[in-house]
Amino acid sequence: MGMKKVAIMGLGLIGASIALAMRKRNLCSEISGFGRTKANLIRAKRKKIIDSFSLDPAAASMDSDIVILATPVGYFTDILSRIRGTLKRGAIVTDVGSVKGGIVDALESETPDGVFFVGAHPIAGSERSGIDFASADLFRDALCILTPTENTDTASLKTIESLWKKIGAKVMKFSPHEHDGIFSSVSHMPHVAAYALVSSVDEINPEYMSFAGQGFKDATRIALSSPEMWVDICRFNKDNIAHHLDVLIQNLNTVKRFLKKNDFESLGEYFSRAKKSRESLE
Amino acid sequence: MGMKKVAIMGLGLIGASIALAMRKRNLCSEISGFGRTKANLIRAKRKKIIDSFSLDPAAASMDSDIVILATPVGYFTDILSRIRGTLKRGAIVTDVGSVKGGIVDALESETPDGVFFVGAHPIAGSERSGIDFASADLFRDALCILTPTENTDTASLKTIESLWKKIGAKVMKFSPHEHDGIFSSVSHMPHVAAYALVSSVDEINPEYMSFAGQGFKDATRIALSSPEMWVDICRFNKDNIAHHLDVLIQNLNTVKRFLKKNDFESLGEYFSRAKKSRESLE
Repeated sequence: MGMKKVAIMGLGLIGASIALAMRKRNLCSEISGFGRTKANLIRAKRKKIIDSFSLDPAAASMDSDIVILATPVGYFTDILSRIRGTLKRGAIVTDVGSVKGGIVDALESETPDGVFFVGAHPIAGSERSGIDFASADLFRDALCILTPTENTDTASLKTIESLWKKIGAKVMKFSPHEHDGIFSSVSHMPHVAAYALVSSVDEINPEYMSFAGQGFKDATRIALSSPEMWVDICRFNKDNIAHHLDVLIQNLNTVKRFLKKNDFESLGEYFSRAKKSRESLE
Repeated sequence: MGMKKVAIMGLGLIGASIALAMRKRNLCSEISGFGRTKANLIRAKRKKIIDSFSLDPAAASMDSDIVILATPVGYFTDILSRIRGTLKRGAIVTDVGSVKGGIVDALESETPDGVFFVGAHPIAGSERSGIDFASADLFRDALCILTPTENTDTASLKTIESLWKKIGAKVMKFSPHEHDGIFSSVSHMPHVAAYALVSSVDEINPEYMSFAGQGFKDATRIALSSPEMWVDICRFNKDNIAHHLDVLIQNLNTVKRFLKKNDFESLGEYFSRAKKSRESLE
């Protein structure tokens, strides 16, 4: 790829894993890091995840060929507005945000002439966050969605696609709008539902929580995810999430109706259909 | 304990695991099995999980000192009505059902004079069912809830408590009513919600399912559970489950309200409280 320098803006699980993955495969000569917390940046440097860092995003990204936005999505546009004046001509700005629609719009209009933006969303990570869980193989066989628009530079798109493939990911392309509908349904709404499920048990009786078995633990593991990150995702994909919460509420009301009517035959068919769909997953 | 013969009515994951656990600790001289499917009983005998079997529940349970109801709960009262005339005097009938209230009432009134009923619910098992997953150690460190009532014979309660402790479980006692409220909230309602979550994605767009990541897989793993078993549980605990579905729906509406009002501060507090509650679990 011939890239010289990469800047990673945000050294959490994803940002640090990208750094480790690129280093392992010799895809860059130098990695600089930006972050909000100096202690985390020092830790990242000690672990040799990054070569240098700055608390000033412009300083961290200057001279970089690729700038990867990997903070919580709420910071992306602010960071780009602070670095746009000092970015190298020909640099590619990309991101790893779990929401795309409004974010891609905002980042595209903030991208200066001579710099190219490519939206990306690697489907990796879990409820565990932070550099301590980072791994050079986090993206192996993971899916990475690229979200090109009519404004996307073709060569830059190819560069970013190639980068993700080299660190092990399978790449698919969707419009930002379609991306947000898909991930609201299989990720964002279910995360919100998991927080609501835990809150419901708390509301019924906080002492009951200790009787939860493995099923409840699995079902609510995603409620251990970072509230800050999920508030950002809700902020930027709220229409889809609200709509999909409505679909879930309607489904819960369907079940309630079966119960009230003692219609256990329909309930059994409903459960069986859901089981069959779920079986397609693993 | 001096027990001679145990009958296990239903050789699924739980029934077969009890048999293996009792054998491993020499808690009985002989185990007979009843089931609806001859092939499964033959398999259980070949695997030496049981010594003998019958497709006739009366034949399988005759002369037994302890009769354990381990079929789906919907069959319990029918089985007891078919064996009540031939049970040995002094026998203890117990069960492993996930619901207790109405079931314990029905089983107590079906229990003949000179025979004693003790309700039990081991919190073990998972979405995997059947004898192939059975294990002598399934109940090690698991919780087993006993649900004595004013009709429960004290000596029989002690015998069943001792049995569960010997096969590794920790025993707690609740009234059938209290048991059902607890397990509706942390198990039954969440199972129903998992089926509804899968159905919601299917309704939004069945093709989106393939983009589900580990979070969704974990959150909906319990939707792989046996529909037959869960319909039975819904049938026998429907008032609690319907009430707790209402609590969940209200919580989902609370989140929707935060989204509509752009009240991301309250949303963050809501997520943070839920995360903190969930952290108490593991």
